[in-house]
Amino acid sequence: MTESVATRTPLSPTPRSTLTRYRGQRDATDRAALDAILDAATICHLGVLMHGAPVVLPTIYGRDGDTLYLHGSTGAGNLRAAMTSDVSVAVTLVDGIVYARSAMHFSMNYRSAVVHGRPVELTDPDQRLHALRVIVEHAAPGAWDTVRSPTKKELAATTVLSLDLTEASVKTRAGDPGDDESDLTANAWAGVLPTRQIFDAPIPSADLVPGIEIPQHVLDRLA
Amino acid sequence: MTESVATRTPLSPTPRSTLTRYRGQRDATDRAALDAILDAATICHLGVLMHGAPVVLPTIYGRDGDTLYLHGSTGAGNLRAAMTSDVSVAVTLVDGIVYARSAMHFSMNYRSAVVHGRPVELTDPDQRLHALRVIVEHAAPGAWDTVRSPTKKELAATTVLSLDLTEASVKTRAGDPGDDESDLTANAWAGVLPTRQIFDAPIPSADLVPGIEIPQHVLDRLA
Repeated sequence: MTESVATRTPLSPTPRSTLTRYRGQRDATDRAALDAILDAATICHLGVLMHGAPVVLPTIYGRDGDTLYLHGSTGAGNLRAAMTSDVSVAVTLVDGIVYARSAMHFSMNYRSAVVHGRPVELTDPDQRLHALRVIVEHAAPGAWDTVRSPTKKELAATTVLSLDLTEASVKTRAGDPGDDESDLTANAWAGVLPTRQIFDAPIPSADLVPGIEIPQHVLDRLA
Repeated sequence: MTESVATRTPLSPTPRSTLTRYRGQRDATDRAALDAILDAATICHLGVLMHGAPVVLPTIYGRDGDTLYLHGSTGAGNLRAAMTSDVSVAVTLVDGIVYARSAMHFSMNYRSAVVHGRPVELTDPDQRLHALRVIVEHAAPGAWDTVRSPTKKELAATTVLSLDLTEASVKTRAGDPGDDESDLTANAWAGVLPTRQIFDAPIPSADLVPGIEIPQHVLDRLA
């Protein structure tokens, strides 16, 4: 994914959100691109600082407006670490394998968002419940209102974090390989092998009460 | 992905590779599981320490035996950072969305590998070329021998890192939701919506020499 065609575009003027190219020109576009990437992906990779080194773990998340929500067990070490130093949250959609005529031009097509900042622990009960709804609805759109809400005990065992989307960057690559002019006539196939995430037929839980049909909000994802 | 069913199993006795459960019992199994996850995924998320905070970026990689290889432009700040402090490399395969009868039991089924350590920059020309072959063959199996090899100039512009797989952990979740006993009779659907990455029909490059067919090693991925 080191590809000269792609540029990581900053959505804020901090050094971490990178570089100076395009600043100011593409902000609005890129904010929409950021939201689109965050909304389309299933999981993020949360990087926190633990014992002086990065620890990256996958986790689910949700976005509402300018806020990314994360949650986990109150016992989760990486969430505790996330409150005491800045974090990096990466969300990546892989769109294709780029086949080139030369080894060093192989690449990926992808949409990548990276958010930096210091998460804030939510303590207000309404804000916490809202954040959990956003996270569950991101993982399973339409599901929240059809299932049992969290109990006080469950909530007490859960850490909920909010992360502002102010400091973020977007990087995408699309299209053909960027082979050198001198390689274009080589006898080698070049192009893109598209890839995407699909859903397969839902599998009811073994202990599901007989007669409960697969809900429309699940079936809608198979389209 | 905070799920009581899942356990992150250490493949080494360091604190970062987590916990003490199962140590010694499941090492061989989990080493095979680690390799399987690394070999099945398309990209990793590399977390490095930059200016005192983690920075997580997606990148391609390859595995050969006990070594993970990474590469990038010599100008890439995160690769320079990767050589001066420990890194965390996460590889995640999402297998399903777990629909529960209660909001807090929604989860993901997944296979996750996390590797920690200090990458070493490869300087030996043969080792570098081998690593690049492993990375390209991971992204595009069967392609390396069909395309132009790297030139000296391309190699001079490329940083190649090796990361030992000694300090790694594997965590997986599979199967039904873990609803509370008291929720099992609720009038809510529960189960798993399987998800996976697929490849679609290859798209030849617009400037491809007419008559060059899609190679078998690309077609094989559509199976």
